[in-house]
Amino acid sequence: MSSVFESFLSTPEALDAFGERHFVGAMLRFEAALARAQASSALIPQDAARCIIDCCTIDRFDVAGLVAGSGRAGSLAIPLVKSLRQVVRAESQHAAGFVHLGATSQDVIDTALALVLQHALGAFRADVHRAAQALLVLAQRHAADPMLARTLMQPASVTSFGLKCAAWGAPLVRGLQRLQTRALPALSVQLGGAVGTLAQMAGQGPKIRAAMAVDLGLNDPGCSWHTQRDDWAALACEVGVLVGSLGKIAKDISLMSQFEVSELAEPAEEGRGGSSAMPHKRNPVACMTALAAAQRAPHRVAAILAAMPQEHERALGNWQAELAEWPGLMMSAQGAARAMGLALQGLQVDARRMLANVESVRAVLPADAAKEWFDVAFSTLASEQARAMVVSQTAALAALASA
Amino acid sequence: MSSVFESFLSTPEALDAFGERHFVGAMLRFEAALARAQASSALIPQDAARCIIDCCTIDRFDVAGLVAGSGRAGSLAIPLVKSLRQVVRAESQHAAGFVHLGATSQDVIDTALALVLQHALGAFRADVHRAAQALLVLAQRHAADPMLARTLMQPASVTSFGLKCAAWGAPLVRGLQRLQTRALPALSVQLGGAVGTLAQMAGQGPKIRAAMAVDLGLNDPGCSWHTQRDDWAALACEVGVLVGSLGKIAKDISLMSQFEVSELAEPAEEGRGGSSAMPHKRNPVACMTALAAAQRAPHRVAAILAAMPQEHERALGNWQAELAEWPGLMMSAQGAARAMGLALQGLQVDARRMLANVESVRAVLPADAAKEWFDVAFSTLASEQARAMVVSQTAALAALASA
Amino acid sequence: MSSVFESFLSTPEALDAFGERHFVGAMLRFEAALARAQASSALIPQDAARCIIDCCTIDRFDVAGLVAGSGRAGSLAIPLVKSLRQVVRAESQHAAGFVHLGATSQDVIDTALALVLQHALGAFRADVHRAAQALLVLAQRHAADPMLARTLMQPASVTSFGLKCAAWGAPLVRGLQRLQTRALPALSVQLGGAVGTLAQMAGQGPKIRAAMAVDLGLNDPGCSWHTQRDDWAALACEVGVLVGSLGKIAKDISLMSQFEVSELAEPAEEGRGGSSAMPHKRNPVACMTALAAAQRAPHRVAAILAAMPQEHERALGNWQAELAEWPGLMMSAQGAARAMGLALQGLQVDARRMLANVESVRAVLPADAAKEWFDVAFSTLASEQARAMVVSQTAALAALASA
Amino acid sequence: MSSVFESFLSTPEALDAFGERHFVGAMLRFEAALARAQASSALIPQDAARCIIDCCTIDRFDVAGLVAGSGRAGSLAIPLVKSLRQVVRAESQHAAGFVHLGATSQDVIDTALALVLQHALGAFRADVHRAAQALLVLAQRHAADPMLARTLMQPASVTSFGLKCAAWGAPLVRGLQRLQTRALPALSVQLGGAVGTLAQMAGQGPKIRAAMAVDLGLNDPGCSWHTQRDDWAALACEVGVLVGSLGKIAKDISLMSQFEVSELAEPAEEGRGGSSAMPHKRNPVACMTALAAAQRAPHRVAAILAAMPQEHERALGNWQAELAEWPGLMMSAQGAARAMGLALQGLQVDARRMLANVESVRAVLPADAAKEWFDVAFSTLASEQARAMVVSQTAALAALASA
Repeated sequence: MSSVFESFLSTPEALDAFGERHFVGAMLRFEAALARAQASSALIPQDAARCIIDCCTIDRFDVAGLVAGSGRAGSLAIPLVKSLRQVVRAESQHAAGFVHLGATSQDVIDTALALVLQHALGAFRADVHRAAQALLVLAQRHAADPMLARTLMQPASVTSFGLKCAAWGAPLVRGLQRLQTRALPALSVQLGGAVGTLAQMAGQGPKIRAAMAVDLGLNDPGCSWHTQRDDWAALACEVGVLVGSLGKIAKDISLMSQFEVSELAEPAEEGRGGSSAMPHKRNPVACMTALAAAQRAPHRVAAILAAMPQEHERALGNWQAELAEWPGLMMSAQGAARAMGLALQGLQVDARRMLANVESVRAVLPADAAKEWFDVAFSTLASEQARAMVVSQTAALAALASA
Repeated sequence: MSSVFESFLSTPEALDAFGERHFVGAMLRFEAALARAQASSALIPQDAARCIIDCCTIDRFDVAGLVAGSGRAGSLAIPLVKSLRQVVRAESQHAAGFVHLGATSQDVIDTALALVLQHALGAFRADVHRAAQALLVLAQRHAADPMLARTLMQPASVTSFGLKCAAWGAPLVRGLQRLQTRALPALSVQLGGAVGTLAQMAGQGPKIRAAMAVDLGLNDPGCSWHTQRDDWAALACEVGVLVGSLGKIAKDISLMSQFEVSELAEPAEEGRGGSSAMPHKRNPVACMTALAAAQRAPHRVAAILAAMPQEHERALGNWQAELAEWPGLMMSAQGAARAMGLALQGLQVDARRMLANVESVRAVLPADAAKEWFDVAFSTLASEQARAMVVSQTAALAALASA
Repeated sequence: MSSVFESFLSTPEALDAFGERHFVGAMLRFEAALARAQASSALIPQDAARCIIDCCTIDRFDVAGLVAGSGRAGSLAIPLVKSLRQVVRAESQHAAGFVHLGATSQDVIDTALALVLQHALGAFRADVHRAAQALLVLAQRHAADPMLARTLMQPASVTSFGLKCAAWGAPLVRGLQRLQTRALPALSVQLGGAVGTLAQMAGQGPKIRAAMAVDLGLNDPGCSWHTQRDDWAALACEVGVLVGSLGKIAKDISLMSQFEVSELAEPAEEGRGGSSAMPHKRNPVACMTALAAAQRAPHRVAAILAAMPQEHERALGNWQAELAEWPGLMMSAQGAARAMGLALQGLQVDARRMLANVESVRAVLPADAAKEWFDVAFSTLASEQARAMVVSQTAALAALASA
Repeated sequence: MSSVFESFLSTPEALDAFGERHFVGAMLRFEAALARAQASSALIPQDAARCIIDCCTIDRFDVAGLVAGSGRAGSLAIPLVKSLRQVVRAESQHAAGFVHLGATSQDVIDTALALVLQHALGAFRADVHRAAQALLVLAQRHAADPMLARTLMQPASVTSFGLKCAAWGAPLVRGLQRLQTRALPALSVQLGGAVGTLAQMAGQGPKIRAAMAVDLGLNDPGCSWHTQRDDWAALACEVGVLVGSLGKIAKDISLMSQFEVSELAEPAEEGRGGSSAMPHKRNPVACMTALAAAQRAPHRVAAILAAMPQEHERALGNWQAELAEWPGLMMSAQGAARAMGLALQGLQVDARRMLANVESVRAVLPADAAKEWFDVAFSTLASEQARAMVVSQTAALAALASA
């Protein structure tokens, strides 16, 4: 659905991550983990749990049918739980009574989305990391290459391309750091039962939630977060900020790739960036992808923030609206990170043209202005800063990787 | 993709309308209409046109493969045109040279989206119309039923439920009128060729565009609108306004359906609005759908508006971002209109409870305030206004239907 | 307040239009018109009305005090009405009892905002008109001047600068047409009384509203629109669309004004576009203003749309939020229209450089691609289209002016 | 400007913080700190620095005139620096040459905004802290008071009001923690000179920036962040998240304050929440303020995120747009925090009505559903969770206060 427009702005992995099959699989992981934890706490019998866990296999379910059924039910959880009970009942009438015990629709859906997001964020972070490392290489290599610094879209003075690359990279490194901090509390298991009190779990609720968190590799939030979406929304914000930083790089590359500027070009590759009408063109399609993401992500973030005043113990409309914004946000983000990672790794840099552009400006200025603002010696200062930033970013990336 | 969250907030028809198959079908309609019009203008041979038109059949194409290929190409048009040339070439080497002649990717994609939108808008308007007519019935039936008027979420005075319904309906009727006005110029054929000048059509461009408009049932805009998206964005705005008006109705119904208020209830129906945990609950899922749409649509509209400053003769990122916002907007809109149409047709109204709620407030007020503000006689005034509004709205809907 | 950042992105007139004094003046116009209409309908005595009308003079009120008092009261209307009653009471105890009779806070505030918007829209339309006419002159003058057509930020083929100007102008002309259509129903008097039923006006309500509409030069909506904001929101949308169209022009001009492109320059003017550090720079500050507006307006529109689901007969938070978005929207819009009107009137066009840029691209292409895509003869086709568009836009502007 | 609508949605302090006088004062603090640091680094003479520092006194400047002049100049910095040079020159021709040495407009404006934000955030955090502490008191006091838990706007089961309060408070505490983390890097001195390289500071740039950071109480970012706004945007996001959490509380309180529910009421206070027409009404105006903020803040955040792809070394339009969004965001946020802090401190809680509402639902249910879902014993479970949350939140607030 809508894949016509999303697919070339995202990645196959992202499309798959938010696909029906992957999401229903995550819901089944929740149900299995719930049964396992409830058996450990002696809330349900071990054999019933084993039976439920065995049934939580995606191939036993009609995924398309479940999704189709969700329209009438108002939620995907209702047909899934119903279907799981039937599958379990076919194995054991006894075990069927323990399916989804004490849990609610939102528990399984929020947790499944946390699992899917964890997966998607992993891929996103890897792509951002690749982009950041490519920038470090460029920053080092071109630290001393002078180029025009431009303000308000006009040449202003001289900088170095290495410093430009280091400045592009800094927000990616900081973004990865912030993302690491924010992902931890946000990717939490959801378990509150009908109204957030776990009243149907005989006092074992908190213990069960903690066990599920370990089992699923998610955080234990210590309480239900059904209508307290702040950590969750803060994570969306960080993704949005990183998309903005990728968009900044894409904006600059697209400007520097203009024919009249010709300082940069995206890597040439068979079948990429062609035109249906003009075979001579090479379009900066990686920048296009990142710029499109940077256009769209802020609106996804805004929608997630706007949905925060969720009524009482489960919202009417706000919760459902918020959930539906996540796939679009993450698909845009992954599209942007993948595109820029690849583009930066193969970026074609014309340092001679950069210098020539500086000279062109200098040539038309009065001598004193030329001397004051377009002396290429300024690039040595920039070069030092670029090298210092490379050192600190390299250290920061290493720290992230080892964390 | 992302259907997990969208499918229960939209309609099967809307999901289908923006599906890959339907969109590629619309692209093929464009290519066929182009060939037909170019043959009529003697720009290409009649037999070549006939061959191209015959080949523009969806079953000849690997839709999923085309979509997958669009990622690398940066646009769905490039693999489609390539694929169409191959299909035609298998029939006639001669004809293959005339495929997509003088057109560009954006021509086929914008026109295909206009066709898909025309289809989706038809369904949306029918649902809004149904909601408006259901409100007229309710407004007439309950014109004289007194109820609390509430301001800032507190009882303020007395109105009639009929007037409330007439007031809910008025923006739907106006919205249908505005939509009719706005859809006409917005649903335009796109034909500009590589850069909007139709330079590759031997001076026949404007004539060909006019013929295609008639053929496809779209407007002839008189020029290319590649990067002039104002009419198009204005249409998105009208859809957004209508979703807001549906959301207003849903907000009020959800408040009036609270247990403590109990003036209204959504129609009871097997399998709708149930809870996975609490079988006694009946959730207002139609309101949920419309409220979720009203949460999300403004951000879609904002994204479309924000994408308007499109660079030069074809934008880098802005155009692609804008396109990708449309399916989400229309799917939300259709979900809201369908849900509210059905809910309003079967709305359960408890006029006695409405009156009892008025009496409850009056009972606790000082006598003079009770007399000044909670005299049920006020509802006769409201009743007159409701009836007058029913008359004018009925006339307006009839005029729309006959237009 | 916040004028530090708004003032150079707007116009002095717009800042003034939404200033406290102007708004309180509009509120007093409402109160005077109400008294006048109620006297005509014999709802209040003529002498009381005359006294009230005389008192509705801005100089009798402590504007800053009223605004300061609105914080505690939750609305500016409450302190104003209280203050007006005091002023009238000082003249006539008898007349004071007829102040604001049967009206509610929202009546005076919505109507006052409609009056202020009417004023602001007049200035905005005049500036857009000026920009559109400047573009007609440019389109005519440069109809046959060839220039690069650029797609995805890369040279694609040849067009004419005249066609570019005509294409920039078309959305302004259409926007003025749409604005005219939308302003009429949106700029309506608000009169509903406490809950929209005009129950406190002895059956004279509709007649009084109609008289006030004539008096104030606003539309009579035929009912109260307290929580039915569709026409109002649709007007905001049109303003947003026009800002997007202005932003498109600014985007292109800023790209064409880059040093390396040098096809255009904003008019040079003492004290405009200077740099605090680099005296040699000339910054395109008109484009900056329009681009900033195009960045911001979509979010104002989204906020207005998102506020549409207003609860019952007066919303809690939504209404107040919506009102507060209007000044920002209109100030941005005016800033953009004024800046682009002036910039386009004095735009410096270097047609020789445009041609030289075409030649530069042609020079580096293979001969066949150069012939197929960069033949300057293409500009004659563009020239014809430009001239045809000038004719139709001239006619459309004339029709608007005489309407 | 626009204060008519903002003033009752914000606080006098916030209006003042973003006022012209306060902002120009912050700009002068930057210029003084720059001179002081440059003298310490021997870049400028000590006596010149002393003269400049002495002149950086707000009373020597025509604030309104500077703001008015910013329109033509395209930035407030240009007229301010010019005016400062004049003031200094009147004292010492020699010193005037050292004003604003090597700095650029964006340095002074960004730093001044950071100073103003630091001030505004202090007030915001204090108000959020007050709200959080009021919730701890309520959570403790009402830990064992049973009330309806409501999902999808329908009664679902039983919880305790204490748990509800603890759940409201948790995001405020987390928000204060996140804000503390995010404010540190975001509130950075800006010093990059014309193009971010500090080329005009004889290699002393980094040292000067570090000294200014200490002087002004801001962070030293280690480089210029002219067009790298990620930490800055991340701070805006956190403010937006906190406003969403305040909006959630306001949403619930407004629902629980409905006449038909009557579980809560905002504190009664002379002159607050009255109605111009209906003296018997008591409107929840604190909730109104927070809900309006929660409606508006997401759009401000989106605008700030959307402005991130800032061109090259200084953006055209994006930067200016971003700056102008901050005052609105912070004024909304402060309005919401102040309103909710006061409302929660004086919140009127009717625990008997809460219990009666539970009983009303239980009375109409089948016995088994009543037993399974509406047993008030469930509230003891909720009570335990509430008390545990009070303990952890108290500790967290204490840690924040001592940090």
